[in-house]
Parts: sequence; C-alpha cells; structure tokens
Amino acid sequence: MTVTIIGAGLAGPLLAIGLVERGFAVEIHERRPDIRRVRQSAGRSINLAVSTRGIHALEQAGLWPAICEMTVPMRGRMMHSPTGELSFQPYGKDETEFIRSLSRADLNAALMDAAEARGVRIYFESRAVTADLRSGRVRFRDENTGEEKLVEASATIALDGANSAIRLEMLRHSRLNFSQQFLDYGYKELTIPAGSGMEKNALHIWPRGSYMLIALPNRDNTFACILFLPFEGPVSFQEIEDEIEVKSFFEKQFPDALALMPQLVENYAANPVGSMVTIKCSPWHADGRFLLLGDAAHAIVPFFGQGLNCSFEDVTVLLEILDRRGPDWPRVFSEFEQARKANTDAIADLALENFVEMRDRVADPLFLFRKKVELALEEKFPGRFVPKYSMVTFHRVPYSVALSRGLFQDRVLGQLCEGITRVDDVDWVKAAQLIEPLGHLESA
Amino acid sequence: MTVTIIGAGLAGPLLAIGLVERGFAVEIHERRPDIRRVRQSAGRSINLAVSTRGIHALEQAGLWPAICEMTVPMRGRMMHSPTGELSFQPYGKDETEFIRSLSRADLNAALMDAAEARGVRIYFESRAVTADLRSGRVRFRDENTGEEKLVEASATIALDGANSAIRLEMLRHSRLNFSQQFLDYGYKELTIPAGSGMEKNALHIWPRGSYMLIALPNRDNTFACILFLPFEGPVSFQEIEDEIEVKSFFEKQFPDALALMPQLVENYAANPVGSMVTIKCSPWHADGRFLLLGDAAHAIVPFFGQGLNCSFEDVTVLLEILDRRGPDWPRVFSEFEQARKANTDAIADLALENFVEMRDRVADPLFLFRKKVELALEEKFPGRFVPKYSMVTFHRVPYSVALSRGLFQDRVLGQLCEGITRVDDVDWVKAAQLIEPLGHLESA
Repeated sequence: MTVTIIGAGLAGPLLAIGLVERGFAVEIHERRPDIRRVRQSAGRSINLAVSTRGIHALEQAGLWPAICEMTVPMRGRMMHSPTGELSFQPYGKDETEFIRSLSRADLNAALMDAAEARGVRIYFESRAVTADLRSGRVRFRDENTGEEKLVEASATIALDGANSAIRLEMLRHSRLNFSQQFLDYGYKELTIPAGSGMEKNALHIWPRGSYMLIALPNRDNTFACILFLPFEGPVSFQEIEDEIEVKSFFEKQFPDALALMPQLVENYAANPVGSMVTIKCSPWHADGRFLLLGDAAHAIVPFFGQGLNCSFEDVTVLLEILDRRGPDWPRVFSEFEQARKANTDAIADLALENFVEMRDRVADPLFLFRKKVELALEEKFPGRFVPKYSMVTFHRVPYSVALSRGLFQDRVLGQLCEGITRVDDVDWVKAAQLIEPLGHLESA
Repeated sequence: MTVTIIGAGLAGPLLAIGLVERGFAVEIHERRPDIRRVRQSAGRSINLAVSTRGIHALEQAGLWPAICEMTVPMRGRMMHSPTGELSFQPYGKDETEFIRSLSRADLNAALMDAAEARGVRIYFESRAVTADLRSGRVRFRDENTGEEKLVEASATIALDGANSAIRLEMLRHSRLNFSQQFLDYGYKELTIPAGSGMEKNALHIWPRGSYMLIALPNRDNTFACILFLPFEGPVSFQEIEDEIEVKSFFEKQFPDALALMPQLVENYAANPVGSMVTIKCSPWHADGRFLLLGDAAHAIVPFFGQGLNCSFEDVTVLLEILDRRGPDWPRVFSEFEQARKANTDAIADLALENFVEMRDRVADPLFLFRKKVELALEEKFPGRFVPKYSMVTFHRVPYSVALSRGLFQDRVLGQLCEGITRVDDVDWVKAAQLIEPLGHLESA
C-alpha cells in the first residue's frame, strides 16, 4: 500500500520512516532543492530546540542516539541586562531537565539520509500544483524540467508547512474552517562567531519589553542570534534600516552583544525579515484521502520552542492510531484530529503567551521569584505541582492539560507569592490546601 | 482617473455609479455570464431583505424610487407551529418600521442597467487570474475566448464575494490576518407557488429548534422558501435524501407548508445544498492599490438580513471618505477600514446570534414577551431604548454601537421581565433607573 508524503522538511521523513517500518511504500515530494546539495538561502537556518516530545519520536524511529550527538544542551535562560549584567534561570528542577539546541539543516539532512536508507524515494523540486480531493490524485510538477505527473496513493499526507499547497486546495474547494493570524513582529537572523566567550549551555536572551534578541549555541561555538522587532512603529524594522541606525540601536540596547558581532551590519543588510503566523484549521482531512500534519495543520509562533516537538508528536500519535486501526484512513485521520486538535490549539496559545514572557517578564524580579517558588512547589509536591514550562517541555502530557493545569497553578502561585519575597516564607500548609484539587499528573 | 471594480454583483455596480458621478472612469470585470441574458443556476436566487442602510445607499445613487417598486413589504415574522398555528410578531414599533423582500436577480439587473446607462463598461466572463499587489496590475482572462489582458488602474476594488480572487492573492502574498468559519448548517431553496393564501406582507418562519424553514414573499405571489438543516447528524441533509424521507420529514415538521408545495420533491432533488460562512480579515487593502469590499472583506451569515445592507453601507462610507480626502487611495483605504472593521465584525457576530433566535427562540413565549416589553420600552423612552433589531435594521447607527447597546439592554430586559408575564406589570420607575446610563441614540 502506497502513501505519498508532501514535504521533506523535518516531520515528513520521520513519518516516512515510521510508515516504511509498518510495510507501506512511501514517496516524498519536496518543492525545494535538496538542502544536502544546494546551499540554503539565509534566514531559513534558524536553530531548533528539541525536548522530550521530539526526543520520544526520534527514539521510536531509532534515530535519537545519532541525533543527540548533533545537539548542544541549554540548561536555562541567560538574561542580559541593558548594561550587560547576566542572570541565569534554569529551565528545570535539576540537571536532568534541559533543552537542546540543534541546527535545522543538520537535523533535516540526517532525517532525509535515514529515510532514504530505509527505501524512501524523495523527489526534490517536485511541486504539488493541483490536488483532486475526491479522487486523491495529486499533480506534481518537476521544477527543473516542467514535466508533470499524476500521483495516486492510498493516502496523501501533507507536511508542506505553513503555506501548505494541499491546505490551499482545501480552502478553495471544501468547507475548511481556517484562521491565520500574523504577529506584528518580524525576525532577522544574525550571528555571533566562535570565541565569544558566551556561556555555551544556555539560551541567551536580551529582553527589552517590546522587542528582544536571543542567541542559541551551535556545536562549532558560534551562536545563531535572532532579533525580534515590530515590523512598523517607532522602534521597528521599518525604522532601523541603514548602517548607522543599526549600530546605534545595538549600542544602546545590546552593547555586550554588539561587541561580539563584527559582522552585524553585513548580516543585518543581507538577511531578510521573516514573519510569524499562528494557523488553526479544521477539518485536517479531506475525503479520507488527504491529511494535513505539522505546520500545514497548525503553525505556531516559535516562542515555546515547541514547533518541532509538536510536529514530531503528531507523528507519534498518528502512528499509534494507525497501529490500532490499520490503514482505514478515513477513520485514522478523523481519530487523529480528534486526539490532537485541542492540544495543537493549546500549544498555539501557549506559544503566543510565551513571547510576552520572553521579551518582557523575564526581566522582572517578581516573575523570577515566582519561577523559584514554582520549582520549590514541584520539589515539595512532585508529580502534582509541575510548572507549566516543564509540563510542556519535559513531559508528554497533552498540551491542553498543560494549559489548563497551568492556569490553575498560576492562580495558586499568585496567592502564595503575595506579600513575600523569599522562598522560605512560602506558607506550605496553605500551598498543600490550594493544590489539593490537582490530581497526580498523568504523563503519556 | 480609472478605477477597476471586480465583481458585478450587487455592491459593484452601485459603487461604480458613485465613482462615475465623481468623475472616475470605471470598468467592471465579472467572472460570471450576464445574468440578464443567461438563466442563472438554481440555488443562487435567494431573496434579499432590504432595510434602512441599503435604502439610504440606493437613495444616494438616485435609484431607490425605481427599486422600491420591485419590493414586497414584510411587516413582521409569521411563526408557524408544528400543528399549523400562526402567530405574528411585528418587526418595528409602528407601521413605518418594516423590511422589504427583493429578488437578488431583479436588483442585480437593475443595478447593472443603471451603471451601464451612466457609462460603466461591464466585462462579463472576465476572470481575475492573477494580481500583482505591488504594481496594481490585474490579469483578466476572457472565459469564452481564453484571451488574457493586463489591466492597470489607479485603484482596484474587489467586490468579488466570499471567494474573492484578490483576497486569495493577498492570502498567498501578504501578511493577511484571515479567518473563515463555516456553519455546520446548509440551506436549500424551495418554492411555494402563487395562490397559497399565505400572508404576503410577512417573513414566514417554521422554527424547529435545531433547524428551520423560512419563506419570503415575491411580487408574483409566490414565496421563496429556504430550508436550513445541519449537513450531518440524525436530522440532516445527509440523512434526508430520497423522496420518501423528504415527504415524511415535511409531513411531521412542516405539514402546513407541505400542503402548499406541490413541487417539493422535485425542488428538493434539483437544488443544491449551499453553505454559509463568516469571513473576517485584515488588512482589507494592499499597497494602496487594492481594496476588498463587501463579502470579499467580511462575509456574514444571512440571518439578520444585513448582507446586502452592510455591503451597501460600505459603499456609502467609502464614498464619504473619498469626498473628504480625494483619491489619495492609500489614505482612503486605510481610513475606510478603520471606520468599518469594528462594525462589520459586529454585524458578523449579530448575524450568527440571530440564527439561534430565528430557529429556536421565536417559538419561546418568554422570548416573545420580552420582544413586547422591548417595544413598550421604546415607546416610553424613544431614542434611548431602541431594540437591537431596530438599531440594526431601521437606524444607521454603527453596528458596533448596536451590538454594545444591545448587550446592555438585554441585561436591563432580563431584570425587568423577571417574575412578570404582562407588559402592564413592568416597573417603569425601575426601568427609567436602569436605562439611565444609555445616552440618546445618535443615528448617522
């Protein structure tokens, strides 16, 4: 039985591997050239954060040991104040809880290699031009030769990202409930070369209220930096354009980073401004023939570091349902959406929330104190009070559970932190009463 | 100065007339054939309700006296119970407040005739295939000859409906915030021939909780009926398919209507099931060259009878801003969206709300009692307590004001109606106190 996958980005090859292992014949069609052969354009190389959900999916595919080697642990956030003071906030409760920085291009290449080694054929520069939702036939055009061919499979799974061609077809020809909301913020990639002396095992943040700079470590001791700024307004990409404006902005806001960025002006001029969008839609499937997966079904903004992890968890869940039901695609697709939709909606909202936290609240002493109290609560009530960040990042509880427990816990935290400034002053009896309604956290 | 209008549906020719009067050269491109020459397909002939906002726009264009002749007054709702009892609920406070039933096709033909008489050239079967948002150039294809031509104008205004080609271009190539949400309900057109004996000056409703039938009068004494049913589920278009099922459903639910519909089974089999969608997006304009208007910018469900009225009010507001600013299109388009967006969002929400009212609440004695109290409140406090339905239908206050005053008034009504069943028992002193915060309603 054949399955067509559209998109050789991260989750496409991972899903292909899972399907091949289950006896399906899989081919992947990818609109872009093979990134292992063609140098990719600037601004697409943004680093990824991989955590528990992503790791679990890679383990299932037997790929984690090799990919783990390609990562750099990030044990917490390193905040840089406007005058260059550093403060560190750990991500987790102990040394087992951290996230990992990983190059998107490296991971993608490794996944494509692994899929091909298992017999998956990847057609590059093969663009889906039309799809007949009823019959399941997709017309692909070879972007080099212009040749077109019709491909028919038992199912077509679209992992072709936020601008999915298949979703556009569903938007035009079926009753697709759909929303896309752009942030007013854009992003631009910048680089800190090796030898900066910056702490390698951290995600660096320069929080400045209405904008921010972040930096993720690479294995070669460089850092991939991303500047987040509004598109328009007094401090914005529109207003900061020429060499002088860029330098004076960095001198004022990010002086310690500026000192580490000899190529700032060139990078700034050369790299495009990217946009960030939240996409929600339903149904994700059409006539039991097509399924949207990953960003094609639910693009999220990058601020919770869950884009990759969420898409990989999609693969885990889909394969579980397939194992349970067999290739009864209409049923599998419909159960998959029922299992995932509330969770992908939840992580979309959590990711938007986290933007405010990263660019603004991490600079607030009260917020940092609450984070400490959270970790103390987790220590006192293990498996019951688990910080929202941890539920999302270090557990595999459904995102919707993380969201609802997180809201409850936020209210508890607010009550416990009122009027105190030291963790020692927390009223633990009151804490035990307040978290009483929280049952034990059931991880997947 | 030239302006291109895409779409010769209702608001397109009306806007063209306003622009020609202001000295612009206007051409209209319409994807469909000329409905004055080609019989239109079934299911597109749905009747319209025209009220104050629509009438105002037609008056401004000098067209109302002629179009008024084509309408049938509807003075209120005539509810049909499952056993055929009738009850009447007037729309307004007196005989000056009513709405008018009008055939979409007749109105469209009259508007196209009027636009052509004023020198507007309408190209039929001319489909916008691509639009360059930057340069403003649009490529149209003649659907008969296949010939394509590039059209460049100072501005292009897209009134090409809920499936707007220009909006699709903006969706693909700009940061368009966009949402479309379909109702789970479809609709099907049916007919009651002349000689039915049904009250002509009313909108007939057979409210049945989770579905309904309605009928609007035509000048020729026929009625255009519309059946609203869920697409799927126990009582749905999916389940009611063959002759026997249709008949037995009508016998049980709409026996008095069935007796008047000799062609029910044929109509039901021949006419398609339509879908209903709410569309919101922003921005409505691209690079000062393109503007979305009417359903292209904000499609709404039909249950408040405001689709036509809202699009015509768009035309009124756009022309007012144009008169104030001159053809500084970037400024005009941006001010237009600022003036209209909150209002079109409001009528979209009000229209969704009204579906529940029509199919369910109008059968509830408590609801009908509240409607009576509303009218009594309006009589006691004229210009201050104006029922929500009236603010939307008989006034030209911004829809967003109607929505917010309506919410306030609903709470007041709830308090005043508690524990009483007769209008005479309303506590007028309390009423005066409760509505104190409401200022005088400022109509446009």
